[in-house]
Amino acid sequence: MTRIPIDGSSNLPRAIMIVILRIGHRPGRDERVSTHCGLVSRALGASSIIYSGEKDEKLIESVKNVVDKWGGRFYASYEENYRNVIKTYKKKKYVVIHLTMYGMPLQQQITKLRKCKNLLIVIGAEKVPPEVYQMADYNIAVTNQPHSEIAALALLLHEYQKGKELNKLFPGAKIKLKPCAKGKSIIEK
Amino acid sequence: MTRIPIDGSSNLPRAIMIVILRIGHRPGRDERVSTHCGLVSRALGASSIIYSGEKDEKLIESVKNVVDKWGGRFYASYEENYRNVIKTYKKKKYVVIHLTMYGMPLQQQITKLRKCKNLLIVIGAEKVPPEVYQMADYNIAVTNQPHSEIAALALLLHEYQKGKELNKLFPGAKIKLKPCAKGKSIIEK
Repeated sequence: MTRIPIDGSSNLPRAIMIVILRIGHRPGRDERVSTHCGLVSRALGASSIIYSGEKDEKLIESVKNVVDKWGGRFYASYEENYRNVIKTYKKKKYVVIHLTMYGMPLQQQITKLRKCKNLLIVIGAEKVPPEVYQMADYNIAVTNQPHSEIAALALLLHEYQKGKELNKLFPGAKIKLKPCAKGKSIIEK
Repeated sequence: MTRIPIDGSSNLPRAIMIVILRIGHRPGRDERVSTHCGLVSRALGASSIIYSGEKDEKLIESVKNVVDKWGGRFYASYEENYRNVIKTYKKKKYVVIHLTMYGMPLQQQITKLRKCKNLLIVIGAEKVPPEVYQMADYNIAVTNQPHSEIAALALLLHEYQKGKELNKLFPGAKIKLKPCAKGKSIIEK
């Protein structure tokens, strides 16, 4: 498998879209983890996140507030029926990747996945319905160990984009950080 | 920067140790995120996690239960005083890396970091005391955007180990998963 350096300077070609579907959200219990899922999706190059499960306006609002302040194009929304989301994106020719510790190892599948143009990445809460495994084009494991859907999502996004996502730009930001060896350097517009 | 394929089959040399220090834990609010930090540390090749902040026996117990069931050597513990932990590991010649969105870009620093033999990686709750930025040898940002300490930790561990951590073995497991294209395959001993 060949890789390019992670310090590549360009973003993904505009035509490539990565959509995240977070299923089974429960307000209260999942609030922070689901928020992290949204922020990681945005920071690491996805174009949007769709939340399913119980409706949680506060969650959507908190992700939208980050976009408003920190810039870039990123959309957060809610859909009651996750099956319809998967079916809709399949019709649009998106490849559906379900992240699960039961799946096939990322390191063995990544070359194939990189050839897929548009992705719908499904991440679940603790118990994912069996049909999701069947509906997915790929069930992918970031290690076959229990850990975190946030970490699994980050590593898939990172490997799929070969590290280029780390240089993503966020136009229209009201606040930016200047990288700092010690302390903080904040630029407000 | 040169990279090796992520499908390398060996683990880190035994002599290399990666310790995670999670500071500012608050039971209740941080419970799930802190648990994810522990599980990600274990799954992605760290040797231990030290929790600081408010004491939370339940958190330590839940990480220990995963180790007991899923195998491998990994230790979770609590230390009230995080400063002492940092000082102790500095004396042991560990390099202290603090993950913060205010820091220097991972992709620019990783070559240097890979030359460090033993790491203490510090990850904080929302507000990290200024002294941590000063005590750290490196303040490293996985993007200068707000997202998740879980994702930042996963990407640092992944890049530092050049993807080899994905093939880490966990001896003594009572439960193992066989990678599966659809569904689940669980092997219990």
